[in-house]
Amino acid sequence: MGGWLAVAGLGPGDERLVTPEAAAAIARASDLVGYGPYVRRVAPRPGLRLHESGNGDEIARARLALALAAEGRRVVVASSGDPGVFAMAAAVFEAIETGEPGWRGLDVRVLPGVTAMLAAAARAGAPLGHDFCALNLSDNLKPRALVERRLRLAVEADFAMALYNPRSKARPDGFARALEILRAVCEPGRVLIFARAVSTPDEEIEVVALSEARPEQADMRTIVLVGSSATRVLAREGRPFVYTPRSAPA
Amino acid sequence: MGGWLAVAGLGPGDERLVTPEAAAAIARASDLVGYGPYVRRVAPRPGLRLHESGNGDEIARARLALALAAEGRRVVVASSGDPGVFAMAAAVFEAIETGEPGWRGLDVRVLPGVTAMLAAAARAGAPLGHDFCALNLSDNLKPRALVERRLRLAVEADFAMALYNPRSKARPDGFARALEILRAVCEPGRVLIFARAVSTPDEEIEVVALSEARPEQADMRTIVLVGSSATRVLAREGRPFVYTPRSAPA
Repeated sequence: MGGWLAVAGLGPGDERLVTPEAAAAIARASDLVGYGPYVRRVAPRPGLRLHESGNGDEIARARLALALAAEGRRVVVASSGDPGVFAMAAAVFEAIETGEPGWRGLDVRVLPGVTAMLAAAARAGAPLGHDFCALNLSDNLKPRALVERRLRLAVEADFAMALYNPRSKARPDGFARALEILRAVCEPGRVLIFARAVSTPDEEIEVVALSEARPEQADMRTIVLVGSSATRVLAREGRPFVYTPRSAPA
Repeated sequence: MGGWLAVAGLGPGDERLVTPEAAAAIARASDLVGYGPYVRRVAPRPGLRLHESGNGDEIARARLALALAAEGRRVVVASSGDPGVFAMAAAVFEAIETGEPGWRGLDVRVLPGVTAMLAAAARAGAPLGHDFCALNLSDNLKPRALVERRLRLAVEADFAMALYNPRSKARPDGFARALEILRAVCEPGRVLIFARAVSTPDEEIEVVALSEARPEQADMRTIVLVGSSATRVLAREGRPFVYTPRSAPA
């Protein structure tokens, strides 16, 4: 048979952030499966079948990819960022667990990539330079109360934070609520970074104090980084450098 | 002058995980600064001065790099993984803040990379597929009590976790203590992944239940991933797939 499935992270957008490993898997693939905009990042070529799908229904997409690999096809599932961070890898394993028994025996590999929070942090300086957490603010797949509980505990632990999927048209209010929670427990000068479409031509990076942050600064292409209480802003000409020191006082 | 400084992440070890952006910066550099083993990952070439340093004293290394850039040199600071995650980027900004006033005006960029937790997670499946945190277990730069407090809060938030620098010869007991804390508050079947020297020829991946984990399974080249309460283990021939579902029950 010789079929295989690679779940490949294409990074945040810039082709110079696609790993050679991911590029090599795509070069050897017979089938490319993924959300339309990610599939369209790959140059078409003879012998490569493209399977574009809409946003949502990740399990159906994963099942298609697994069925193709089981037929002996060489399948890449295209994911943005890193496939293991709020992306397609977990959906593929969920589809394996609930799918055909034979799928567990398939050659399935995850190819890591540069996830959005790392690219966003790099643009700002090193805001995730000490302990931090990554939280998906979408309540599509978990109760809103759990999102808010985790946000509170992350502040209590004094983690820096990366907030994925802060706001969508379907969920305009969740991020406003997250800001309220942060304002209730953090000092007004807490540093926030709004990083939109990082590493693409549409990139916008804004550094603001929590007291100045507005919900409208985030959309579905934005990742929001929140500093810890120790995060520093170094003023300079142009955008400041933001970093979280490696050490914490006793 | 035209000097610049790029803090570049070389990924966890495999050259196929070095981004084209990082490779291009190294190709244009006049000076490469870093911890010996990272500098030695780069092929020497005429015109590239190598500045290897020992482990520790990241600030001195950062100051050297900044001074070279201020002289007009094209400097790459080589970091493993992603430079913004428990690596050199925060040290560079700390050195800027406490150093020569002119350093704030330098062209300093951070080039993101594949940090160890993402490569380790990819090898195991998708254990960081839902909300998670990254904790540096070293108490070189922060009090032990803070490490333990964050560990407890991370469990309370039910984050999956990536534990960096779990154990060294100088700190043989900290990781044993971390295991005790986890055992006191998590179920015995909680999934742990010991990922050593990921993506190198020395790679070793072990998946164990918390009740079976031993401190000796970790060393300084190991990253330890801890599942959330929802993390699943899919038995199969060979190493199981481990993943954390994207959804959480209401």
